[in-house]
Amino acid sequence: MSKNETIAHNEQEIQRTEAHLAELEYAHPADGADVIEDLPLADQVEVVRGLDLEDAAEFLSEMEKHDRARLMRSLAPDLAADILEQMSPDDAADVLDDLDDAHKQQLLNRVESEEAAEIETLMTFDPDTAGGVMNTEITVVDQNLTADQAITLIRRAAEESEIPYYAYIVDSVETLVGVVSLRNLMLARPRKPLREMLENQQLVTTLYDTDKEDVAHLLRHYNFLAVPVVDYEGRLMGVVTHDDVMDIIHEEASEDMLGMVGAGQDETVDTPWLRSVALRLPWLIVNIANSIVAALVVYRFEGTIAQITILAVLMPMVANLAGNAGHQSLAMMIRQLAMEGWDPKRAWYAVWRESKIGVVNGLVMGLLIFIGVFLLTHQPLLAGVMAVALALDLIVGNASGAMFPIILKMLGRDPAQASSIFVTTVTDTMGFFLFLGLANMFLL
Amino acid sequence: MSKNETIAHNEQEIQRTEAHLAELEYAHPADGADVIEDLPLADQVEVVRGLDLEDAAEFLSEMEKHDRARLMRSLAPDLAADILEQMSPDDAADVLDDLDDAHKQQLLNRVESEEAAEIETLMTFDPDTAGGVMNTEITVVDQNLTADQAITLIRRAAEESEIPYYAYIVDSVETLVGVVSLRNLMLARPRKPLREMLENQQLVTTLYDTDKEDVAHLLRHYNFLAVPVVDYEGRLMGVVTHDDVMDIIHEEASEDMLGMVGAGQDETVDTPWLRSVALRLPWLIVNIANSIVAALVVYRFEGTIAQITILAVLMPMVANLAGNAGHQSLAMMIRQLAMEGWDPKRAWYAVWRESKIGVVNGLVMGLLIFIGVFLLTHQPLLAGVMAVALALDLIVGNASGAMFPIILKMLGRDPAQASSIFVTTVTDTMGFFLFLGLANMFLL
Repeated sequence: MSKNETIAHNEQEIQRTEAHLAELEYAHPADGADVIEDLPLADQVEVVRGLDLEDAAEFLSEMEKHDRARLMRSLAPDLAADILEQMSPDDAADVLDDLDDAHKQQLLNRVESEEAAEIETLMTFDPDTAGGVMNTEITVVDQNLTADQAITLIRRAAEESEIPYYAYIVDSVETLVGVVSLRNLMLARPRKPLREMLENQQLVTTLYDTDKEDVAHLLRHYNFLAVPVVDYEGRLMGVVTHDDVMDIIHEEASEDMLGMVGAGQDETVDTPWLRSVALRLPWLIVNIANSIVAALVVYRFEGTIAQITILAVLMPMVANLAGNAGHQSLAMMIRQLAMEGWDPKRAWYAVWRESKIGVVNGLVMGLLIFIGVFLLTHQPLLAGVMAVALALDLIVGNASGAMFPIILKMLGRDPAQASSIFVTTVTDTMGFFLFLGLANMFLL
Repeated sequence: MSKNETIAHNEQEIQRTEAHLAELEYAHPADGADVIEDLPLADQVEVVRGLDLEDAAEFLSEMEKHDRARLMRSLAPDLAADILEQMSPDDAADVLDDLDDAHKQQLLNRVESEEAAEIETLMTFDPDTAGGVMNTEITVVDQNLTADQAITLIRRAAEESEIPYYAYIVDSVETLVGVVSLRNLMLARPRKPLREMLENQQLVTTLYDTDKEDVAHLLRHYNFLAVPVVDYEGRLMGVVTHDDVMDIIHEEASEDMLGMVGAGQDETVDTPWLRSVALRLPWLIVNIANSIVAALVVYRFEGTIAQITILAVLMPMVANLAGNAGHQSLAMMIRQLAMEGWDPKRAWYAVWRESKIGVVNGLVMGLLIFIGVFLLTHQPLLAGVMAVALALDLIVGNASGAMFPIILKMLGRDPAQASSIFVTTVTDTMGFFLFLGLANMFLL
């Protein structure tokens, strides 16, 4: 490249960066984050260098973890540290969590010491607990103030911190004694002491080491915007807010699907792949044991198969179709338990309902199979044996698919865990037994 | 029962009801709803009769749909109508939605006419759209007011309606022109006209007929507490709030699990069971077609099986184990797409990652199977054939499990839909082909 070409190239780059910056000027942080994520890495770095620190902090807070970590690694450490300082400490801790230890330390050393200490404290909490997701920028108000004084205090604090939905009322030793919503503060008689507003209040808090999913359930149960996090002495440590909870709920619900098939419930594409191996292999090995049961049934009828090898052709179809139907019931039941919680009457009603569905689906599928096999083989007995075996196995599949999560629940286990493997065992074993058993009786 | 016994019985009942009412006095509506749900129906009715109407409305709004519908059917129509009047119109519409048409009309006729009209309008919206979940009790402010005037207006309105997180600013023809958060109102210079606060604002709204899941994504994307719902002329109709969105997200994430196995994504235990039959049967029938592919492979090797019937015993194990592994990848990939959205680079990286996991799991499983089959049969060739077939099929399972959702996505389909059926087809077909094919080559 000649010198002139290099200059032209740089100018193009500058123009491009300026166009991106103009696009970002009035963008909502979440939209800005999307714009940045879609740029090539080199452009991302240029754009972040061109933003003021506060905007950069907002956009980075909203970026997807993987893209953000890559960008952070490419920024000059001084700039990265300046941006971290502008973030809320919990966001900064999240950003650092995705970097390796050496890089983490390098950046923390560059962050102003008080801020760095707070970020480091937050990073000590297990990320799956209330402490790991809480926000520490909260508005704390002494219980001896009046409503009016509290509003003035909050107005002043709001310029610095995130939206205060609630004012957290503490006593002289910083113990949380109550929560007052901004709405109630605005509606209260100005001179009313906060202490009086807390009478008859049922204070709902969560301990810092509570599992984050339990915190999410709490917030969802009460429709709160935020729930206060306290230590074992009842001192206020932070709050978990609705936006964090939405992400937790979103993550959690799809965990059942992974649990059902015996994968790690918290696996993502960023899980070290050997860890995924370690999470999944045990269930695959359990499945060996389970499929031995089905194999033993087939072994028992080896003689029958030797005489009528077409049985070996049709046998997997019976098991596969009933297995599919069983999984439909299974998924439905796991979802039911996740949505409504454990209610024995509803649960057993669902088993009854699934069994009815199994009967109708079994009859229809049996009829179709009868017609199909008869047309192909012109053997009414073979077609009949397969149709009856399929219909019965399908009913068994639906009933057992609905029952497994209940049994796991009653045993105090996760209703989803590896249930797919056990349902398949039942439908395979029963399918082979019914099909080969009936064949043995009627076809030999 | 003698007269004295009857009186004693009634007195016991009254005491019990009074105890329940005392328990409910300071309970949060969500907790109160739980308390009521756990009572026998007769006691539920007694307790609701004893509550004041406003509390009854709050508790019923929080009750689980199924329990609530049962209770509503047991209340005197006049009392039920009085309670509905105390609810927000969107909650009242939700309650009525679960009742049959005759009962619905009977209650609506008893509700004050203006209120009834609003409830009826809300009930005309598709419950799966923004209009179907929106709340209509909002605080609308004219753009020509100042910040101070707006606060006074909101303060007055807050006594009647739910918490106003935002003030919705309209022009003279009721078109929504902007949204100002309560926080920004409190921080603004008192005399500042609202119009000036809207400069450079990117107004985010949703149309009343937008799918509720898209609304949930919007709110989650921006971390909003509420998103305004407008008609095609831009007139404000209502808002969808964070608590509704949490329920939508919770519901939606588990839909993938049902979709994956070819059940209806919105099935619950309350879906009419014949509708479940209609939703599931088509996929079971698709599965017949799919399993014919696998059956044809076995048919092709019927001669091999006739000579070595132990193949028919071991064959389903290969397919089952690889199918299980394939489902682990499948679930992981569907979750990945649900969590991060569609990013081709990340998606293909995930396929690569799953394939690596497949290689290691395939080798380990193959080794275990080799040892097991060899110890049982003392046939090293048979053990080797099965081990190799299993290892290869497991890799195929992992790779195809990860690829199917991507292919569906690229075809513009739901990445989960019935993918389980197709993955099973691949692992069954490949498993039978590899196992029987290798057996044919090395064992005959």
